[in-house]
Amino acid sequence: MSMHEGLAPDPDDPLACCTPLAREPISDEQAGQLAPLLKAIADPVRLRLLSMVLSHEGAEACVCDLLPSFDLSQPTISHHLKVLHDAGLLDREKRGVWVYYQARPAAMAALGSLFDAAGVPA
Amino acid sequence: MSMHEGLAPDPDDPLACCTPLAREPISDEQAGQLAPLLKAIADPVRLRLLSMVLSHEGAEACVCDLLPSFDLSQPTISHHLKVLHDAGLLDREKRGVWVYYQARPAAMAALGSLFDAAGVPA
Repeated sequence: MSMHEGLAPDPDDPLACCTPLAREPISDEQAGQLAPLLKAIADPVRLRLLSMVLSHEGAEACVCDLLPSFDLSQPTISHHLKVLHDAGLLDREKRGVWVYYQARPAAMAALGSLFDAAGVPA
Repeated sequence: MSMHEGLAPDPDDPLACCTPLAREPISDEQAGQLAPLLKAIADPVRLRLLSMVLSHEGAEACVCDLLPSFDLSQPTISHHLKVLHDAGLLDREKRGVWVYYQARPAAMAALGSLFDAAGVPA
């Protein structure tokens, strides 16, 4: 399965929108939508969790996949995953005894578009 | 002047480094370097300020250029610019009576690389 399979953003999602920061000043509204996404990943554990979910086989992972990489309890990891979910960065789906997390395509696209061309070397 | 002139990252900068989140799990060290950058822009005013500096003519701006777009005092805007500078997102240079801010190339490149391919549609 491709790493990005299923990651096409929904064009009706208000986040599937965003102007690169360097193209023109982003609007108040866009800044207000994006700041909570950035806040959710402005934490080393949550940033690593998002990276682990995105890069995991099938671009999804359960707590059971993530826990061994951290010296943290399962409730702590579950709390961080909930913060990422509540911010709209992760979708989740219960299958059997585990909840599986996937990155939310619109949120990834919104964050990706922010820095498009912002760091392009001269 | 090109929007990105002068934005070539210094390859010796430890931030001129980063693996896209979706390629492989980012390291503890990378997450620890990136979280403070994300925290600094996890605020609507600071995100707009960074966007305004990046998209301003010559890719630099002084408080005098930025202030008219906000219903905030100059000390408040200067405080937010200081947070962005202290986090390593903006360089600054005094010329005459004003301080001019520019986005720091290595920081922009590090943030840009994070989401490379992370939101690519299937």
